[in-house]
Amino acid sequence: MIETGTYLHQMRATAPLVHNITNYVAMNMMANVLLSAGASPAMVHAREEVAEFAGLAQTLTINIGTLDPAWAEAMEIAARTMNAAGRPWVLDPVGVGATRFRQEVCARLLLLRPTVIRGNASEILALSGLGGQGRGVDAADPVEAAETAARDLAGRTGAVVAVSGPVDFVTDGASAYRVLNGHALMPCVTALGCSLNGVIAAFIAGQEQLGATAAALAYYGLAGERAAQGAAGPGSFLTAFLDALHVLTPDDLRHGARVVAA
Amino acid sequence: MIETGTYLHQMRATAPLVHNITNYVAMNMMANVLLSAGASPAMVHAREEVAEFAGLAQTLTINIGTLDPAWAEAMEIAARTMNAAGRPWVLDPVGVGATRFRQEVCARLLLLRPTVIRGNASEILALSGLGGQGRGVDAADPVEAAETAARDLAGRTGAVVAVSGPVDFVTDGASAYRVLNGHALMPCVTALGCSLNGVIAAFIAGQEQLGATAAALAYYGLAGERAAQGAAGPGSFLTAFLDALHVLTPDDLRHGARVVAA
Amino acid sequence: MIETGTYLHQMRATAPLVHNITNYVAMNMMANVLLSAGASPAMVHAREEVAEFAGLAQTLTINIGTLDPAWAEAMEIAARTMNAAGRPWVLDPVGVGATRFRQEVCARLLLLRPTVIRGNASEILALSGLGGQGRGVDAADPVEAAETAARDLAGRTGAVVAVSGPVDFVTDGASAYRVLNGHALMPCVTALGCSLNGVIAAFIAGQEQLGATAAALAYYGLAGERAAQGAAGPGSFLTAFLDALHVLTPDDLRHGARVVAA
Repeated sequence: MIETGTYLHQMRATAPLVHNITNYVAMNMMANVLLSAGASPAMVHAREEVAEFAGLAQTLTINIGTLDPAWAEAMEIAARTMNAAGRPWVLDPVGVGATRFRQEVCARLLLLRPTVIRGNASEILALSGLGGQGRGVDAADPVEAAETAARDLAGRTGAVVAVSGPVDFVTDGASAYRVLNGHALMPCVTALGCSLNGVIAAFIAGQEQLGATAAALAYYGLAGERAAQGAAGPGSFLTAFLDALHVLTPDDLRHGARVVAA
Repeated sequence: MIETGTYLHQMRATAPLVHNITNYVAMNMMANVLLSAGASPAMVHAREEVAEFAGLAQTLTINIGTLDPAWAEAMEIAARTMNAAGRPWVLDPVGVGATRFRQEVCARLLLLRPTVIRGNASEILALSGLGGQGRGVDAADPVEAAETAARDLAGRTGAVVAVSGPVDFVTDGASAYRVLNGHALMPCVTALGCSLNGVIAAFIAGQEQLGATAAALAYYGLAGERAAQGAAGPGSFLTAFLDALHVLTPDDLRHGARVVAA
Repeated sequence: MIETGTYLHQMRATAPLVHNITNYVAMNMMANVLLSAGASPAMVHAREEVAEFAGLAQTLTINIGTLDPAWAEAMEIAARTMNAAGRPWVLDPVGVGATRFRQEVCARLLLLRPTVIRGNASEILALSGLGGQGRGVDAADPVEAAETAARDLAGRTGAVVAVSGPVDFVTDGASAYRVLNGHALMPCVTALGCSLNGVIAAFIAGQEQLGATAAALAYYGLAGERAAQGAAGPGSFLTAFLDALHVLTPDDLRHGARVVAA
């Protein structure tokens, strides 16, 4: 059983500086999510400073949503910095199935040993080379279809792999969990998956990877459940979601988390 | 009479993948608007992948809000891809009257035959070469002042031209409609016009252009009317607007749309 | 005693076009803040048009949050344009203590005589060369620790210097004020500091610099106080904050402002 509340408590006590190289759509939401959760976000990408800044951060996220070559180079520099410092980083291979450019960049990033890889089922299938059906950035495959791919990808890369969906699946290749928390309104708000990367990165800073990732997923999904109570649509849900991230306590999470061994 | 509800129903049944090359201010809002409306947004701009990605999309929007030369090049590549595939695209000439650079880029984009051109009155006047008074990105001219320019621009380019304002005007050069839906709080929220481009793009995918554009304007304005009920200012209006886009049904639109021949 | 209400009234009567060269995280929020407050925001950064656009604007903000060399060049061009036109501009040296690149860019920008410099205590300390403790973009030093640095920086540069925090400190090197308005939820929403730059820029367009800056800080903090009433967390606070910026009247500000000589 995963001590979800303890992971949340520890994350807030540390309030890690989370360095994010992410897409333009997600930046604002991701920063608000991290502030609401209790971490300290920063977005820095220029080649002239990305290594120096990554050296100050406890943890890093890389998201290829609105990729271009200069940003891809910054991603590699920052990931190398985290490797050299022995600090964790999270990879989100947004829409990796859609273009050759994304596949090439992700192939290079995989060599830089991400600590956690998080994506939807189509992205994890595409990344593990098994071929997914993703046409854009939304999932076209069910989570179950990506479980074998996730275990395989985790085994090959040494990363914890998290597949987001109605029920999340997370594995380090050996053990695996399903996280049942969440709500159907979550895919109706943009960048909620991207912003989750930051929460995972904050949780895994200085904590055990698989447990911390599962705890982050449960915390995020539980905030979604709370936010959906009384929400009249995606707008009021978004507002209530940031509130819920802020007010949820470790005890709330201990009682509300629904994480089961897979 | 335009069957607004049918256009909305059909858009949601298709849930088109909408490729957007838009400005940094609008990206997040636009993605949320499209998800709330029932479409699937994606933002992709790098030369290395923009054609390949546009090839996957049902429809495209181009918005020159925070323009630079590399993005302008991506816009041309994506528009050409849509032309080659016989798929529609929407042009928003943000602030085209303000600088020579914007005028040059828009002149090139006009040659790539946009399916719909949407702007405020100052932008449509500037684009049609009649000279508007726009100083920044907000309109300084009334919609009525741009009606002749809109008809002329539509006639010359073959595009449907939509002029946004308190009462929208939309024409294909031959027929024209006025859309009376909307609310005074809408210009108090940034990127609402930009985000409307995405909704128009989603509506026109596989549907008749002029009717679908008018229906999209009515749907958007009606959502604004609903959102204004009980809003205490631009913040609560924004939240309620995303909710309204999500919950409005085709029947709601049939009853609430106020579209008249012009 | 500063006539805060008069400054707000005058800003809204002018509704200045505010040109912003700011970071990706802040752009949308900043535009919404300026629209809610009653100004007209625009974001333009390309070398090909930035001088021409700055020539149209009443006032400018520069924020180095997500810096790169091309944007830094645009910042210098725009600041020079404002200098040549005798118009004001606001500098926000985000995370200047974090990297050498930021320090070099800020050194160049300081030579272009910003009208107002606004930052947190760590940033003002770093900028004035006294050394702050800032690791990322959040303040690690109390406002009081930066008061001498602020007076010194103001004296050397001729700028009004504003230090944001629980109690803001603002000085032109000779006089100084403390602004007591504000709320503890404000640092839980991203880009609220960045967006304040825009409000300051709108207030100082055609108005006395030190008084207008103090009035802008009081207006912003008072909106935060109003928004916190009934807020359940950062999400509902953000929504209510935009509402409050919109509905606060000059009389509300006259009665609610808490500005004292320092």
